[in-house]
Amino acid sequence: MRTTDAIKVRITDGPLPDAPARNADGECGAWVVFEGVVRRDEGGRAISALRYTAYEPMATNQLAELAGSILNTHGLVRVEVEHSRGQVPVGACSFRLSIGSAHRKEALAAMDEFIDRMKQDVPIWKEPVWA
Amino acid sequence: MRTTDAIKVRITDGPLPDAPARNADGECGAWVVFEGVVRRDEGGRAISALRYTAYEPMATNQLAELAGSILNTHGLVRVEVEHSRGQVPVGACSFRLSIGSAHRKEALAAMDEFIDRMKQDVPIWKEPVWA
Repeated sequence: MRTTDAIKVRITDGPLPDAPARNADGECGAWVVFEGVVRRDEGGRAISALRYTAYEPMATNQLAELAGSILNTHGLVRVEVEHSRGQVPVGACSFRLSIGSAHRKEALAAMDEFIDRMKQDVPIWKEPVWA
Repeated sequence: MRTTDAIKVRITDGPLPDAPARNADGECGAWVVFEGVVRRDEGGRAISALRYTAYEPMATNQLAELAGSILNTHGLVRVEVEHSRGQVPVGACSFRLSIGSAHRKEALAAMDEFIDRMKQDVPIWKEPVWA
Protein backbone atom coordinates (compact mmCIF):
# COMPACT_ATOMS: atom_id res chain seq x y z
CA MET A 1 0.00 0.00 0.00
CA ARG A 2 1.14 3.55 -0.77
CA THR A 3 -0.16 6.18 1.60
CA THR A 4 0.20 9.89 2.05
CA ASP A 5 -2.27 12.13 3.83
CA ALA A 6 -4.18 12.59 0.60
CA ILE A 7 -3.49 9.44 -1.43
CA LYS A 8 -3.96 5.74 -0.80
CA VAL A 9 -3.20 2.96 -3.28
CA ARG A 10 -3.68 -0.71 -2.58
CA ILE A 11 -3.52 -3.90 -4.70
CA THR A 12 -5.52 -6.74 -3.12
CA ASP A 13 -5.52 -10.47 -3.91
CA GLY A 14 -9.03 -11.48 -5.05
CA PRO A 15 -12.25 -9.44 -4.69
CA LEU A 16 -12.06 -6.12 -2.87
CA PRO A 17 -13.50 -5.98 0.65
CA ASP A 18 -16.39 -3.58 1.32
CA ALA A 19 -15.60 0.11 1.10
CA PRO A 20 -13.76 1.50 4.13
CA ALA A 21 -15.45 4.14 6.25
CA ARG A 22 -15.29 7.59 4.71
CA ASN A 23 -13.26 10.34 6.30
CA ALA A 24 -15.80 12.61 8.05
CA ASP A 25 -13.80 15.69 9.01
CA GLY A 26 -16.09 18.08 7.14
CA GLU A 27 -13.38 19.08 4.66
CA CYS A 28 -14.87 17.14 1.73
CA GLY A 29 -18.32 18.23 0.61
CA ALA A 30 -18.43 15.56 -2.09
CA TRP A 31 -17.35 11.95 -2.16
CA VAL A 32 -17.62 10.11 -5.44
CA VAL A 33 -16.93 6.40 -5.46
CA PHE A 34 -16.62 4.30 -8.59
CA GLU A 35 -16.78 0.52 -8.29
CA GLY A 36 -15.98 -1.77 -11.20
CA VAL A 37 -17.86 -5.03 -10.83
CA VAL A 38 -17.32 -8.22 -12.84
CA ARG A 39 -20.19 -8.63 -15.32
CA ARG A 40 -21.62 -12.02 -16.14
CA ASP A 41 -20.71 -11.92 -19.79
CA GLU A 42 -17.82 -10.76 -21.93
CA GLY A 43 -18.59 -10.03 -25.56
CA GLY A 44 -21.89 -11.91 -25.23
CA ARG A 45 -20.36 -15.10 -23.82
CA ALA A 46 -20.94 -16.16 -20.19
CA ILE A 47 -18.01 -15.98 -17.77
CA SER A 48 -17.61 -17.10 -14.18
CA ALA A 49 -14.81 -14.70 -13.25
CA LEU A 50 -12.10 -12.36 -14.48
CA ARG A 51 -8.47 -13.03 -13.72
CA TYR A 52 -6.25 -9.96 -13.25
CA THR A 53 -2.50 -9.83 -13.65
CA ALA A 54 -0.74 -6.81 -12.18
CA TYR A 55 2.91 -6.14 -12.96
CA GLU A 56 4.29 -5.10 -9.56
CA PRO A 57 5.72 -2.81 -8.26
CA MET A 58 5.15 -0.83 -11.44
CA ALA A 59 1.35 -0.98 -11.15
CA THR A 60 1.30 0.44 -7.62
CA ASN A 61 3.83 3.12 -8.51
CA GLN A 62 1.91 4.22 -11.58
CA LEU A 63 -1.43 4.25 -9.74
CA ALA A 64 0.12 6.44 -7.04
CA GLU A 65 1.61 8.77 -9.65
CA LEU A 66 -1.70 9.01 -11.45
CA ALA A 67 -3.54 9.66 -8.17
CA GLY A 68 -1.11 12.48 -7.38
CA SER A 69 -1.49 13.94 -10.84
CA ILE A 70 -5.28 14.14 -10.75
CA LEU A 71 -5.24 15.34 -7.14
CA ASN A 72 -3.15 18.32 -8.18
CA THR A 73 -4.81 18.99 -11.53
CA HIS A 74 -8.35 19.00 -10.13
CA GLY A 75 -7.61 20.40 -6.66
CA LEU A 76 -8.97 17.34 -4.86
CA VAL A 77 -8.72 16.53 -1.15
CA ARG A 78 -8.47 12.70 -1.20
CA VAL A 79 -7.83 10.03 -3.84
CA GLU A 80 -8.03 6.37 -2.83
CA VAL A 81 -7.46 3.53 -5.30
CA GLU A 82 -7.95 -0.20 -4.77
CA HIS A 83 -7.44 -2.83 -7.46
CA SER A 84 -7.67 -6.62 -7.41
CA ARG A 85 -5.21 -9.09 -8.77
CA GLY A 86 -5.92 -12.77 -9.29
CA GLN A 87 -9.40 -14.15 -9.73
CA VAL A 88 -12.59 -12.12 -9.07
CA PRO A 89 -15.99 -13.84 -9.54
CA VAL A 90 -19.04 -12.39 -11.30
CA GLY A 91 -20.78 -9.77 -9.16
CA ALA A 92 -17.71 -8.98 -7.06
CA CYS A 93 -15.80 -5.71 -7.06
CA SER A 94 -12.32 -5.60 -8.64
CA PHE A 95 -11.65 -1.87 -8.70
CA ARG A 96 -12.65 1.04 -6.48
CA LEU A 97 -11.75 4.69 -6.89
CA SER A 98 -12.84 7.06 -4.12
CA ILE A 99 -12.44 10.79 -4.61
CA GLY A 100 -13.10 13.40 -1.94
CA SER A 101 -13.28 17.06 -2.89
CA ALA A 102 -14.78 20.30 -1.74
CA HIS A 103 -17.35 20.27 -4.53
CA ARG A 104 -18.87 17.87 -7.03
CA LYS A 105 -17.80 18.93 -10.52
CA GLU A 106 -14.06 18.46 -10.06
CA ALA A 107 -14.59 15.03 -8.47
CA LEU A 108 -16.61 13.74 -11.44
CA ALA A 109 -14.18 15.14 -14.01
CA ALA A 110 -11.23 13.66 -12.12
CA MET A 111 -12.87 10.24 -11.92
CA ASP A 112 -13.40 10.00 -15.65
CA GLU A 113 -9.84 11.13 -16.36
CA PHE A 114 -8.30 8.76 -13.82
CA ILE A 115 -10.01 5.67 -15.27
CA ASP A 116 -9.17 6.59 -18.87
CA ARG A 117 -5.52 7.11 -18.02
CA MET A 118 -5.36 3.99 -15.84
CA LYS A 119 -6.64 1.78 -18.65
CA GLN A 120 -4.09 3.26 -21.01
CA ASP A 121 -0.99 3.42 -18.81
CA VAL A 122 -1.11 1.07 -15.82
CA PRO A 123 0.16 -2.51 -16.33
CA ILE A 124 -2.87 -4.47 -15.13
CA TRP A 125 -4.43 -6.96 -17.54
CA LYS A 126 -7.57 -9.08 -17.34
CA GLU A 127 -8.64 -12.33 -18.98
CA PRO A 128 -12.03 -14.04 -18.80
CA VAL A 129 -12.62 -17.32 -17.01
CA TRP A 130 -15.37 -18.86 -19.19
CA ALA A 131 -18.42 -20.29 -17.43
CA MET B 1 -40.01 5.39 -0.13
CA ARG B 2 -40.71 4.90 -3.84
CA THR B 3 -39.51 1.62 -5.30
CA THR B 4 -39.60 -0.12 -8.64
CA ASP B 5 -37.18 -2.80 -9.77
CA ALA B 6 -34.86 -0.15 -11.10
CA ILE B 7 -35.54 2.94 -8.98
CA LYS B 8 -35.49 3.67 -5.26
CA VAL B 9 -36.17 7.06 -3.66
CA ARG B 10 -36.09 7.69 0.06
CA ILE B 11 -36.27 10.82 2.24
CA THR B 12 -34.75 10.22 5.70
CA ASP B 13 -34.98 12.31 8.88
CA GLY B 14 -31.46 13.42 9.88
CA PRO B 15 -28.14 12.05 8.54
CA LEU B 16 -28.28 9.16 6.07
CA PRO B 17 -27.30 5.73 7.36
CA ASP B 18 -24.33 3.96 5.74
CA ALA B 19 -24.75 2.91 2.14
CA PRO B 20 -26.83 -0.25 1.67
CA ALA B 21 -25.20 -3.35 0.18
CA ARG B 22 -24.86 -3.14 -3.57
CA ASN B 23 -26.80 -5.43 -5.84
CA ALA B 24 -24.32 -8.11 -7.00
CA ASP B 25 -26.13 -9.94 -9.79
CA GLY B 26 -23.42 -9.28 -12.36
CA GLU B 27 -25.68 -7.09 -14.50
CA CYS B 28 -24.03 -3.79 -13.54
CA GLY B 29 -20.37 -3.46 -14.48
CA ALA B 30 -20.16 0.00 -12.96
CA TRP B 31 -21.53 1.48 -9.76
CA VAL B 32 -21.01 5.17 -9.16
CA VAL B 33 -22.01 6.60 -5.82
CA PHE B 34 -22.10 10.29 -5.00
CA GLU B 35 -22.32 11.37 -1.38
CA GLY B 36 -22.94 14.95 -0.39
CA VAL B 37 -21.41 15.65 3.02
CA VAL B 38 -21.97 18.71 5.21
CA ARG B 39 -18.83 20.87 5.07
CA ARG B 40 -17.62 22.75 8.13
CA ASP B 41 -18.02 26.19 6.64
CA GLU B 42 -20.51 28.00 4.46
CA GLY B 43 -19.19 31.03 2.60
CA GLY B 44 -16.13 31.10 4.90
CA ARG B 45 -18.13 31.09 8.15
CA ALA B 46 -18.12 28.07 10.48
CA ILE B 47 -21.31 26.03 10.76
CA SER B 48 -22.28 23.14 13.02
CA ALA B 49 -24.95 21.66 10.75
CA LEU B 50 -27.26 22.21 7.80
CA ARG B 51 -31.02 22.09 8.21
CA TYR B 52 -32.99 20.71 5.24
CA THR B 53 -36.62 21.39 4.47
CA ALA B 54 -38.30 19.07 1.98
CA TYR B 55 -41.74 19.89 0.61
CA GLU B 56 -43.46 16.49 0.63
CA PRO B 57 -44.83 14.56 -1.20
CA MET B 58 -43.68 16.76 -4.10
CA ALA B 59 -39.99 16.18 -3.34
CA THR B 60 -40.27 12.40 -3.42
CA ASN B 61 -42.40 12.48 -6.56
CA GLN B 62 -40.00 14.76 -8.39
CA LEU B 63 -36.94 12.73 -7.33
CA ALA B 64 -38.64 9.57 -8.62
CA GLU B 65 -39.57 11.27 -11.89
CA LEU B 66 -36.02 12.56 -12.32
CA ALA B 67 -34.59 9.11 -11.54
CA GLY B 68 -36.84 7.58 -14.20
CA SER B 69 -35.89 10.23 -16.71
CA ILE B 70 -32.13 9.73 -16.37
CA LEU B 71 -32.54 5.95 -16.21
CA ASN B 72 -34.20 6.02 -19.63
CA THR B 73 -32.06 8.73 -21.20
CA HIS B 74 -28.76 7.12 -20.25
CA GLY B 75 -29.80 3.46 -20.45
CA LEU B 76 -28.98 2.78 -16.79
CA VAL B 77 -29.79 -0.35 -14.77
CA ARG B 78 -30.36 1.12 -11.27
CA VAL B 79 -30.90 4.59 -9.79
CA GLU B 80 -31.15 4.96 -6.01
CA VAL B 81 -31.65 8.33 -4.33
CA GLU B 82 -31.56 9.15 -0.63
CA HIS B 83 -31.94 12.66 0.80
CA SER B 84 -32.06 13.96 4.36
CA ARG B 85 -34.54 16.34 5.85
CA GLY B 86 -34.08 18.08 9.19
CA GLN B 87 -30.72 18.69 10.78
CA VAL B 88 -27.49 17.05 9.53
CA PRO B 89 -24.22 17.81 11.40
CA VAL B 90 -20.86 18.65 9.82
CA GLY B 91 -19.17 15.56 8.37
CA ALA B 92 -22.41 13.59 7.97
CA CYS B 93 -24.02 12.58 4.71
CA SER B 94 -27.22 14.32 3.59
CA PHE B 95 -27.54 13.07 0.01
CA ARG B 96 -26.58 9.87 -1.77
CA LEU B 97 -27.10 9.01 -5.42
CA SER B 98 -26.17 5.46 -6.49
CA ILE B 99 -26.16 4.61 -10.18
CA GLY B 100 -25.63 1.13 -11.57
CA SER B 101 -25.00 0.66 -15.27
CA ALA B 102 -23.38 -1.72 -17.69
CA HIS B 103 -20.47 0.66 -18.30
CA ARG B 104 -18.86 3.70 -16.76
CA LYS B 105 -19.36 6.66 -19.10
CA GLU B 106 -23.15 6.74 -18.99
CA ALA B 107 -23.15 6.46 -15.18
CA LEU B 108 -20.89 9.50 -14.76
CA ALA B 109 -22.83 11.59 -17.28
CA ALA B 110 -26.12 10.64 -15.63
CA MET B 111 -24.83 11.54 -12.19
CA ASP B 112 -23.85 15.05 -13.19
CA GLU B 113 -27.17 15.63 -14.94
CA PHE B 114 -29.22 14.27 -12.05
CA ILE B 115 -27.63 16.58 -9.48
CA ASP B 116 -27.89 19.66 -11.71
CA ARG B 117 -31.57 19.01 -12.36
CA MET B 118 -32.28 18.13 -8.72
CA LYS B 119 -30.84 21.43 -7.49
CA GLN B 120 -32.92 23.31 -10.02
CA ASP B 121 -36.24 21.48 -9.80
CA VAL B 122 -36.74 19.55 -6.56
CA PRO B 123 -38.27 21.45 -3.60
CA ILE B 124 -35.59 20.77 -0.96
CA TRP B 125 -33.94 23.76 0.70
CA LYS B 126 -31.07 24.07 3.15
CA GLU B 127 -30.09 26.67 5.73
CA PRO B 128 -26.91 26.82 7.83
CA VAL B 129 -26.86 26.31 11.58
CA TRP B 130 -24.01 28.62 12.59
CA ALA B 131 -21.35 27.25 14.94
